[in-house]
Amino acid sequence: MKAGELVLLISSDNSYLVEVRREKLHTQDGIFDLSQLLKRRIGGKIKTHLGKEYTIVKPNIADILEKKVRRAPQIIMPKDIGLIIAYTGIQPGSLIVDAGTGSGFLSIFLASYIKPGKVVTYERKKRFLEIARENIKVSGLSRYIKLKLKDVRKGIDEKNVDMVTLDMKDAEKVVKHAYKALKPGGWLVVYSPYIEQVKSVVEEIKKKAFCSLKVVENIVREWQVERSTRPKTIGLMHSGWLTFARKIK
Amino acid sequence: MKAGELVLLISSDNSYLVEVRREKLHTQDGIFDLSQLLKRRIGGKIKTHLGKEYTIVKPNIADILEKKVRRAPQIIMPKDIGLIIAYTGIQPGSLIVDAGTGSGFLSIFLASYIKPGKVVTYERKKRFLEIARENIKVSGLSRYIKLKLKDVRKGIDEKNVDMVTLDMKDAEKVVKHAYKALKPGGWLVVYSPYIEQVKSVVEEIKKKAFCSLKVVENIVREWQVERSTRPKTIGLMHSGWLTFARKIK
Amino acid sequence: MKAGELVLLISSDNSYLVEVRREKLHTQDGIFDLSQLLKRRIGGKIKTHLGKEYTIVKPNIADILEKKVRRAPQIIMPKDIGLIIAYTGIQPGSLIVDAGTGSGFLSIFLASYIKPGKVVTYERKKRFLEIARENIKVSGLSRYIKLKLKDVRKGIDEKNVDMVTLDMKDAEKVVKHAYKALKPGGWLVVYSPYIEQVKSVVEEIKKKAFCSLKVVENIVREWQVERSTRPKTIGLMHSGWLTFARKIK
Amino acid sequence: MKAGELVLLISSDNSYLVEVRREKLHTQDGIFDLSQLLKRRIGGKIKTHLGKEYTIVKPNIADILEKKVRRAPQIIMPKDIGLIIAYTGIQPGSLIVDAGTGSGFLSIFLASYIKPGKVVTYERKKRFLEIARENIKVSGLSRYIKLKLKDVRKGIDEKNVDMVTLDMKDAEKVVKHAYKALKPGGWLVVYSPYIEQVKSVVEEIKKKAFCSLKVVENIVREWQVERSTRPKTIGLMHSGWLTFARKIK
Repeated sequence: MKAGELVLLISSDNSYLVEVRREKLHTQDGIFDLSQLLKRRIGGKIKTHLGKEYTIVKPNIADILEKKVRRAPQIIMPKDIGLIIAYTGIQPGSLIVDAGTGSGFLSIFLASYIKPGKVVTYERKKRFLEIARENIKVSGLSRYIKLKLKDVRKGIDEKNVDMVTLDMKDAEKVVKHAYKALKPGGWLVVYSPYIEQVKSVVEEIKKKAFCSLKVVENIVREWQVERSTRPKTIGLMHSGWLTFARKIK
Repeated sequence: MKAGELVLLISSDNSYLVEVRREKLHTQDGIFDLSQLLKRRIGGKIKTHLGKEYTIVKPNIADILEKKVRRAPQIIMPKDIGLIIAYTGIQPGSLIVDAGTGSGFLSIFLASYIKPGKVVTYERKKRFLEIARENIKVSGLSRYIKLKLKDVRKGIDEKNVDMVTLDMKDAEKVVKHAYKALKPGGWLVVYSPYIEQVKSVVEEIKKKAFCSLKVVENIVREWQVERSTRPKTIGLMHSGWLTFARKIK
Repeated sequence: MKAGELVLLISSDNSYLVEVRREKLHTQDGIFDLSQLLKRRIGGKIKTHLGKEYTIVKPNIADILEKKVRRAPQIIMPKDIGLIIAYTGIQPGSLIVDAGTGSGFLSIFLASYIKPGKVVTYERKKRFLEIARENIKVSGLSRYIKLKLKDVRKGIDEKNVDMVTLDMKDAEKVVKHAYKALKPGGWLVVYSPYIEQVKSVVEEIKKKAFCSLKVVENIVREWQVERSTRPKTIGLMHSGWLTFARKIK
Repeated sequence: MKAGELVLLISSDNSYLVEVRREKLHTQDGIFDLSQLLKRRIGGKIKTHLGKEYTIVKPNIADILEKKVRRAPQIIMPKDIGLIIAYTGIQPGSLIVDAGTGSGFLSIFLASYIKPGKVVTYERKKRFLEIARENIKVSGLSRYIKLKLKDVRKGIDEKNVDMVTLDMKDAEKVVKHAYKALKPGGWLVVYSPYIEQVKSVVEEIKKKAFCSLKVVENIVREWQVERSTRPKTIGLMHSGWLTFARKIK
């Protein structure tokens, strides 16, 4: 492998996402000499100085997002992104407008699916934009994501868009811009942590020629399956609502 | 548009997935003369004989699956497919092995994401295979899906597979074959309507070098957001569990 | 047993709540001659003319409510009543004010627990009051329930009340009256099908000296446990929210 | 009030369950001189030395259980007890057999509802029995609860019982004893944290003449209702299943 490449090291207990370079990595299983990776291939093995063996695998976008991306506080979760992908049927080659960028998590996830399409993401706070730019660089998807330092409440520049995703305060103020930017048949998807936000967004959607309006929440319950089986006691009771609507004309 | 093409007609109240051809379509909004579509373009309009206007849009895979695919009784749902995509981070270009094919719903959905990759799907009942073949043809994804009339419990032919998805009885008997077929870092995902199935599958997974074992269920609650807001009274309380595991070596 | 008494007949498949009297009851298991009950005792048996045996048991309040009480459309459910009883710790001998009466379901259930206490229930529609009066008579709890034909938004007559339960539109307009009627340490409980109602009620509660404010929803999922085990597919996704608050002084 | 009496002191922010006696209580709001309570009445006021005012109220069983009862690790929760009360319609004056006693929480809660009836509770570990005895004494319900140091798997002494509640390992071994002890129409209720336990219990229940078999789980989701409204992020995803069955004859 080449210096600078990202690889994932996995064992039965742990996993590490590392860059191939002349460095040591100290872990609870011992020390990796990462320069050894220069002579290995994907699917090969590497041991710590304590003899614990790890397999070298190619990281996917979920690994990179989980391990490398600096997260903003209330980030949209994989379970919710999965629902966006499944309900809208968004396809490779699509043009997506996303706002606000935040940490870039949603843009990166979507870009990994719709490449060679494009995600254009709006963020009005320079500080967040810089975090997102760094995260996008790590993801290796810079070519498919365009960052815009702009307040999306003032309008969307793109036309003929396949999907607009909004994960921001005041999303209701962007509905009319999203409507204008979307192609007929295109989807607006809004992520809202609070029910008042859902109400405001739905109200604006009803003023425009949208169809297929749907509001859902998505509760994933993790189970422990050992000799005895039960849902895990404590878990995530709520992330946010997803509102879906489709432009008619 | 050309004869034989699939298009989606949408209005505020209804939508129809139709083939462009010299036919009439009778609907509750009146009669469409579908031959008019030959002179229209995506984004254009068409009216019923009663004057109700519809917009012509390009259908996506979710439309095609919802409107055209003949469904087997207990089919995996979009919410669960979304979770598979989001948790595994499966990417365009991947090689997936799927069993059993059933109506082909899961294969079609996955193929639409991983093209130009490939989904190889195993089904041992000829009757189901024929239904699936028809559904796949309608989806336009035949190039990316290979149907095999074979009992997957007897082995998987493919090697170096990125993901194996199992939605079938006796999935526990396929875990060892899936392990062999997967590349290191590749994912096994099993969909199980019953908890006893989950237990059997997890038991087999623990015998092999898998990591990142996770069992979840996924409850989507739909809301009605009008002047007054509440979850819809009656809904889907359960579809199935999803078990995720990742091959180490 | 005496004529006029209510008894429950149970078998492995069905149950019937019947009055002891000189009548026949036609069922899918055959015909009961109910006059036979005059010579039987609780715990005894009775057969249909087809020979199907039933056991004669004393009905409890849940049986009577389920089988005999005419229900208004959107009635509070046993799962929610259970939560009221468990969270407030309301005790035998208590004084409860309830509004609106509706079918009387909640009043009857509460009266069965707090007897020899009293439930005073307000209803402004004469039509509902008559239905409730009939239901209460059937329940055998008339002595412990006082029906008032009065608009509770105009005030509550009782003082030193242990609990006020509101299951009605405009419940927020009754919060101040409830506050006045409650004794220190007494509970206000409001049942609201819509989230907007919850918000209005909570806003009013915050204006008064209440503590222990708590808003919950309660989802009961029924399971089928046979050779294979899973939650039932379709079920009740929502009934209403319960808001709890306790008067300080 | 008299020395030794339990009272609850409540303010907008906190509450304290205290015994009336010549002592000081140090709190975050300052120091209470509890001997002042000897001259006060229920409904009266007491101030800390910092001037923070509290109202003196009569504690109910929920207060006592929450504040005073030493809890064993995996105790049945009020939401689940509420469901038992609501689904079985258990009434004042009933005879209940409960096992295992544990901290006595369930026995105390049930006794508070069915007094002047009786709860007989079985516990085979002396250590737990002593904890329960202490808790029952605090609750003031000793007259209505009988503690038995006995392994309930060896049999139930009581006859003509209205309800048997089981919250213990090996509950399936007690089903036949419960059946024998119950009166026709009486309820068996089993609380099981693990699904395997549910399956074993249901299997035993099906061997006996029980009807109305029902298995449920009960998820209570708490909401935060402020200027913005949403379910609380983290919460209790699972406590246990409740299995209900009713003896026919």
